[in-house]
Amino acid sequence: MSKNTGGSSYDKKLWGGRFESGPTGDVIQFSTSIGIDWRLWEADIDGSIAHAKMLGKQSILTEQDAAEIVRGLEIVRKQIGEALAKGENPFPIDVEDVHSFIEIQLKAAIGVTAGRLHTARSRNDQVATAFRLTLAREGEALAKELSQLQAILLKRAEPEVETMLPGLTHFQHAQPVSLAHHLLAYFWMFQRDRERLSDWMKRVRVLPLGSAALAGTSFPLDRGFVAKELGFHRPCENSLDGVSDRDFALELLSGLSLMALHLSRMAEEFVIWSAPEHGFLELTDQVTTGSSIMPQKKNPDVSELIRGRTGRAIGALVQMATMMKGLPLSYNRDMQEDKEPVFYALDSVRASVRLTAFMLEGAKFHSGKMEASLSGDFSNATDLADDLAKKGVPFREAHEIVGHVVRHCLNSNLKLEDLSVEALKKLDTRFDETSKKVLLHRSVMEARTSEGGTGPSAVRTQIEKAKTVL
Amino acid sequence: MSKNTGGSSYDKKLWGGRFESGPTGDVIQFSTSIGIDWRLWEADIDGSIAHAKMLGKQSILTEQDAAEIVRGLEIVRKQIGEALAKGENPFPIDVEDVHSFIEIQLKAAIGVTAGRLHTARSRNDQVATAFRLTLAREGEALAKELSQLQAILLKRAEPEVETMLPGLTHFQHAQPVSLAHHLLAYFWMFQRDRERLSDWMKRVRVLPLGSAALAGTSFPLDRGFVAKELGFHRPCENSLDGVSDRDFALELLSGLSLMALHLSRMAEEFVIWSAPEHGFLELTDQVTTGSSIMPQKKNPDVSELIRGRTGRAIGALVQMATMMKGLPLSYNRDMQEDKEPVFYALDSVRASVRLTAFMLEGAKFHSGKMEASLSGDFSNATDLADDLAKKGVPFREAHEIVGHVVRHCLNSNLKLEDLSVEALKKLDTRFDETSKKVLLHRSVMEARTSEGGTGPSAVRTQIEKAKTVL
Amino acid sequence: MSKNTGGSSYDKKLWGGRFESGPTGDVIQFSTSIGIDWRLWEADIDGSIAHAKMLGKQSILTEQDAAEIVRGLEIVRKQIGEALAKGENPFPIDVEDVHSFIEIQLKAAIGVTAGRLHTARSRNDQVATAFRLTLAREGEALAKELSQLQAILLKRAEPEVETMLPGLTHFQHAQPVSLAHHLLAYFWMFQRDRERLSDWMKRVRVLPLGSAALAGTSFPLDRGFVAKELGFHRPCENSLDGVSDRDFALELLSGLSLMALHLSRMAEEFVIWSAPEHGFLELTDQVTTGSSIMPQKKNPDVSELIRGRTGRAIGALVQMATMMKGLPLSYNRDMQEDKEPVFYALDSVRASVRLTAFMLEGAKFHSGKMEASLSGDFSNATDLADDLAKKGVPFREAHEIVGHVVRHCLNSNLKLEDLSVEALKKLDTRFDETSKKVLLHRSVMEARTSEGGTGPSAVRTQIEKAKTVL
Amino acid sequence: MSKNTGGSSYDKKLWGGRFESGPTGDVIQFSTSIGIDWRLWEADIDGSIAHAKMLGKQSILTEQDAAEIVRGLEIVRKQIGEALAKGENPFPIDVEDVHSFIEIQLKAAIGVTAGRLHTARSRNDQVATAFRLTLAREGEALAKELSQLQAILLKRAEPEVETMLPGLTHFQHAQPVSLAHHLLAYFWMFQRDRERLSDWMKRVRVLPLGSAALAGTSFPLDRGFVAKELGFHRPCENSLDGVSDRDFALELLSGLSLMALHLSRMAEEFVIWSAPEHGFLELTDQVTTGSSIMPQKKNPDVSELIRGRTGRAIGALVQMATMMKGLPLSYNRDMQEDKEPVFYALDSVRASVRLTAFMLEGAKFHSGKMEASLSGDFSNATDLADDLAKKGVPFREAHEIVGHVVRHCLNSNLKLEDLSVEALKKLDTRFDETSKKVLLHRSVMEARTSEGGTGPSAVRTQIEKAKTVL
Repeated sequence: MSKNTGGSSYDKKLWGGRFESGPTGDVIQFSTSIGIDWRLWEADIDGSIAHAKMLGKQSILTEQDAAEIVRGLEIVRKQIGEALAKGENPFPIDVEDVHSFIEIQLKAAIGVTAGRLHTARSRNDQVATAFRLTLAREGEALAKELSQLQAILLKRAEPEVETMLPGLTHFQHAQPVSLAHHLLAYFWMFQRDRERLSDWMKRVRVLPLGSAALAGTSFPLDRGFVAKELGFHRPCENSLDGVSDRDFALELLSGLSLMALHLSRMAEEFVIWSAPEHGFLELTDQVTTGSSIMPQKKNPDVSELIRGRTGRAIGALVQMATMMKGLPLSYNRDMQEDKEPVFYALDSVRASVRLTAFMLEGAKFHSGKMEASLSGDFSNATDLADDLAKKGVPFREAHEIVGHVVRHCLNSNLKLEDLSVEALKKLDTRFDETSKKVLLHRSVMEARTSEGGTGPSAVRTQIEKAKTVL
Repeated sequence: MSKNTGGSSYDKKLWGGRFESGPTGDVIQFSTSIGIDWRLWEADIDGSIAHAKMLGKQSILTEQDAAEIVRGLEIVRKQIGEALAKGENPFPIDVEDVHSFIEIQLKAAIGVTAGRLHTARSRNDQVATAFRLTLAREGEALAKELSQLQAILLKRAEPEVETMLPGLTHFQHAQPVSLAHHLLAYFWMFQRDRERLSDWMKRVRVLPLGSAALAGTSFPLDRGFVAKELGFHRPCENSLDGVSDRDFALELLSGLSLMALHLSRMAEEFVIWSAPEHGFLELTDQVTTGSSIMPQKKNPDVSELIRGRTGRAIGALVQMATMMKGLPLSYNRDMQEDKEPVFYALDSVRASVRLTAFMLEGAKFHSGKMEASLSGDFSNATDLADDLAKKGVPFREAHEIVGHVVRHCLNSNLKLEDLSVEALKKLDTRFDETSKKVLLHRSVMEARTSEGGTGPSAVRTQIEKAKTVL
Repeated sequence: MSKNTGGSSYDKKLWGGRFESGPTGDVIQFSTSIGIDWRLWEADIDGSIAHAKMLGKQSILTEQDAAEIVRGLEIVRKQIGEALAKGENPFPIDVEDVHSFIEIQLKAAIGVTAGRLHTARSRNDQVATAFRLTLAREGEALAKELSQLQAILLKRAEPEVETMLPGLTHFQHAQPVSLAHHLLAYFWMFQRDRERLSDWMKRVRVLPLGSAALAGTSFPLDRGFVAKELGFHRPCENSLDGVSDRDFALELLSGLSLMALHLSRMAEEFVIWSAPEHGFLELTDQVTTGSSIMPQKKNPDVSELIRGRTGRAIGALVQMATMMKGLPLSYNRDMQEDKEPVFYALDSVRASVRLTAFMLEGAKFHSGKMEASLSGDFSNATDLADDLAKKGVPFREAHEIVGHVVRHCLNSNLKLEDLSVEALKKLDTRFDETSKKVLLHRSVMEARTSEGGTGPSAVRTQIEKAKTVL
Repeated sequence: MSKNTGGSSYDKKLWGGRFESGPTGDVIQFSTSIGIDWRLWEADIDGSIAHAKMLGKQSILTEQDAAEIVRGLEIVRKQIGEALAKGENPFPIDVEDVHSFIEIQLKAAIGVTAGRLHTARSRNDQVATAFRLTLAREGEALAKELSQLQAILLKRAEPEVETMLPGLTHFQHAQPVSLAHHLLAYFWMFQRDRERLSDWMKRVRVLPLGSAALAGTSFPLDRGFVAKELGFHRPCENSLDGVSDRDFALELLSGLSLMALHLSRMAEEFVIWSAPEHGFLELTDQVTTGSSIMPQKKNPDVSELIRGRTGRAIGALVQMATMMKGLPLSYNRDMQEDKEPVFYALDSVRASVRLTAFMLEGAKFHSGKMEASLSGDFSNATDLADDLAKKGVPFREAHEIVGHVVRHCLNSNLKLEDLSVEALKKLDTRFDETSKKVLLHRSVMEARTSEGGTGPSAVRTQIEKAKTVL
């Protein structure tokens, strides 16, 4: 937004009666929040409309006044909406906050009746309501973006059920796994993220409006009506808590931090898989960049940026937790610092979710490189131990025997899968033809048919479950 | 625990087959975790019992072997339990972790059959299972302690519905509120904390066991059976995710951080209210201490410590988030760093919850000081504006008029409640007898009858709601 | 900056040779940094000028080409400077970063010779240099602002050497202290902050330029010359470290966090002192605001905001530390995330320092309220114990005796200073006339003449020291 | 320490005079700090000895009493030292803190004269002094460990000046670098860490003792004498600041966080280099472990643990910053929370530094794998562009030309170094024999002779510098 089409000014602030002089330029700049809270504009209008309707319904205002205010607020909504659509910035920088601005615009639209809107409410409950409503809406959009990312994970996973790559623990080859299985691991992380968002929705959609400044009001409100109008579950139970609770913001930041951590893990893998030593993955030109000095470079920048932005959500959480620490009841101005970190983390995670989906959608998997790297990697050793266990050898003993087989191979520079049945038998008489068969990497993968395992049959079941939850 | 009655040693580690030499003293000390993970001991035994039963049921082991293992594990449970009951430390410091120790003890109890227990599982899924089970149990204990704190808040609130104190915004007197209302604000904070714990329970009670090292297993497991045995909702859907997911620990730390922030707010108030300038509160000798140099001091140490420990949960969350950042799949040893921060934060918050309850239970409220501080504080001014608004003056105008009344009082050194009807009328002709009446602080409080407000009738309704949710 | 007068576009990016297609809109928005790094513009020009001069001096470029480039860069400096002076935004949003933009503008100014500037350097070392130079300059400005705040602390302290207020430990009255002494405690905190900045200067002024992309270059550079031109102490010793070191940013964030914590402590006191129960302080109308609903309010908003912004620096530090964790050598794109948190924290702390100074300068101390609150507060009790100790009673015994005297007063509702000599003697025969005299609060304060103590003579010495370090 | 040989109890606490009842078990457990602060024991004794000597010198105590106290403290030092040497725990759990314990032991040793030691001091300044002294000593030990790690980096680097490996940016091959150069990058990181420790020493060695509880004292102290005795630079200038300043702990935590981040980068590389795809590095059996289920595994556990513990220092910093936020002057009990996070981070970083050195010392570099991975990786492309630039082509144009050469190779599946002079000329007529020569990876590395570059001559100079600073 580059052009400022607003026209009102700070000296129209709404609380000046008892003051002989006002804040100076520096102070105004320090304390104004419209650069951040303009994002609450539509939720503020919705909240005010619900409030005005209720005031009318309860005869706190006349029905005519209430209707006039609603009409005026719709005018303001249209004005702001149109300016934003044109790429203009309708919010003047010299207004205290977006709520003052909207009230000023309302007065410009309908005159003194505008002054009746603020009956039986305070900025404290008004702001908390608009913030919650905005976050609930953003949270829904985020949940949708997460499910789109999940859909792409599923789409990329489905054709790769039989594709093998080294499954790692300690970043060492452990056992071969299905690429589909690997991708689906992320599917379930994002599923938990969506579940957490959904639980959080129960708490963010609790209505502070009606708490007034801190103590409730003597006007005969119908708070349940307002809650219903705004899609909230219920009014808050305590007005002091209503104006000073910011749990919903902190809980959202916690959820965003987990999402960022999940994304960072996938990003790390994309970066490593893109390196020539692995070569498992090729990203599209659209999500990679070159170098100002090295003409050959194809850098996985988008992955690096996603990984590099992990700390945004965590830092924002720390910022806001520091702010809330030790604040006595009820509202304190410190709490104005609630929106910036939340929007910062939210925007960052939402963009990272979208870009991860975009990156993944276009990525090319090099299954040849994946399979090649399994050769001679001993990631089939567990199955040799399991083979003994199935023959009745206590697993601990079987494990030790195979440890010695591995050492024998390392010393003789042999691949485990290349040992003949005879060679195996020489190492332990209980080995037989079956032992030889289980050593094929593909057999290793296919055998893992337990629920949630990497065997193709189990992965296909998993895919069906994933489709169900989407 | 001061005496070490264990006797096994590190060289009995379970993975040594392929190694020619082993870790040295420094490395052992650096990597051992039994000093922390001994707390998983009982959950580990429960997990192993469920696993052994399932192995028997599925004929992976013979029923006899399975039964023998279960019997052996109960012996180990008894041994450890008895040592702990006697104040002894049964865990040797030179064992890798509690899981190795229990397996070693099992072998001591029942011989080589012990070696069959580890069939179809790995330490990766075993540890994750024991950790989740332990946290689920600790979480339940915490939820109970929170509800005990809520019960005391309720108990202290009920007799104080009519007690007035200054309600604050910006730490300035805003409007008089009921002390019961103030205390109940905390009730609802802790209620949200319990709700979050309850949502988290859905996710912590998901079973990793059966994921084996990372890829599942070729043994015909019945993971649903194990889940049910352990009180888990279901097995996890993906084995890679199963061994590398630590969301449940991070989510718990987030919830603990919020609890700590809530406690810090109450602690801050207790500290300030105990200062002579406020004098609203007197804490018992049991939760206060003196000074080594100033004989008169009675310091609210417990409150200060609770406030000072707020950062434990937040710091632990940062610690663990830093650890998880950018880790590729699946399990990495970094994740061993999951237990220490969680137990540190958990223990600290649980103790703080209990001590807050204890402190509150014995605290003496000085209602006289509370009411005295309302005199002449202008916290009745809003109601004068509301009075005009009810007479049809747009609220914005009413607000401005009262601002001038306040300034008049300040300039003339008058209390607002002492203005006569005549004086009021001189300032604005619309003031009348009613205006005078609303100025009494008690009237101000009593008038706030809106849902969730501080008026005694509303507070009594709130108390009923609070009783219902407890 | 509201108007965008730049005109170049992203497809002029400098590394496109090997790419067949480029980033799309979303990716561009995700990865562009000019919205943040425009702040490096002047340092980038200075760095480029020094580089060009060196290239000429070393005959890597002809002297003419070098001079032409310097001339062109001064043109660009003038263009950008003038646009900014007019309140216009000269930086197009569709350029990758400010460095590309400046090079594009340079080409517009002097044609193809511009293409020779990037000889023997890379964006990696160029960006690191411009960032360090910018921070060194901002750091100097901050140090100056800190010393201005110190000057105001000193100015306000000097007339208050004899003003008494309760000195607190555990937020309880401990011993009376001089208001000047209290204010000077902050003076020394900010003095340490300046010292830390000064130590940091040694490390931020180390030159990465010449590291090229990561490995140095085959051109015969004179890095010492460039360092000197830019006011740096020396070139960095290792090119890999040169492009991937961000210690200087993290160390600055640590320093800013400490400043923010210091400011938070003063802000907390301003808030509490402004409450009617204390009433020690009155802030000017310029740094306080009113309420939209409560006409009487005078809220210490600026103090609250300063306190509420404490977490910005700490959160930014966490954000950036998370980013650096586990990054392999050398430069990774993650590191682009270095500027935003640093500028965010820097701007916030700088403004808070200035506003704290402004707030303090105008604040009115109510010494009457301060002294009144000392009456009967037992903060003179230590001196009664010291009196006994001076008479030869072991301090531990003296402490205990006075504890009983205090309890006697509390039980009898007496002020300690009102006890007669006789009454004292009855409590312990070793009390005498001197004991009575030391009980006056002013005597208590005046007696503390030890170095760094609150006695007026010691405080005056302290003021002289403070003047010396300023 | 497993056996508790202390015998004193909490009810001997030093401030009980005015209290009618005392803390209960839960409260004692919550507030006791001896489990942590026992580590201050020797510094506390040293501080007390210096204090006692000064009291004697200033005739505040008689010379005999002072000497007797010193003698007694040396007895206590011997008792505690001997118990610790035997592996016993001399610190009872039921004493408030280590300072009380030492005073109790002193009384046991010399009787009532012990009670004179606490003249003219308070626990507030006593604890701060002991904590600073302990940290200064630990900081020195850490600095030494850092320099040992640097020495090993240097020792391992020296023989590897000519060893080539891919130098990375964005984790993509950028230009070949010398392994010595790569290792030395870490040398300079730890050098900065030592410099920061050294700057911090100036601030930690400032003496709080003499601040007494908060306000100084009326006894004629010689604080300079005590400072000198303890190796401190000077007494603090303000007593309120003296007892409430914890900057030194926070600054140390910041420095430790940077060290942990440096270690995490090296650990990440060790983990990746140990994977079979890279195979650059083989760690010794001593710092790797196996798997309970996969017999072939050789996991880089120690590296993973070091990386996984990065968050300890950062989390501890956040914990402590949260604690200090918004605390009014002067000492508050919250500050007791200063030691645990500091010791936790300090111990963790110190062990990580030692283990990194140990790990590096034994590591085997596979230079063959390193060089092999350079083949055909285009990390020689920059030099082809530089070659053109040296022939007068503006670098930007040269860069673009080489971009097309790279694309040509990729399309034709050719290595850049395999292009013939003719093939090069066909792509751009300005290419010649020299162009061909610069394409050898070794030439690329050797050419980087600029100061701080990776060319062997420059690296040898760098090694000399490194030796100088050690």
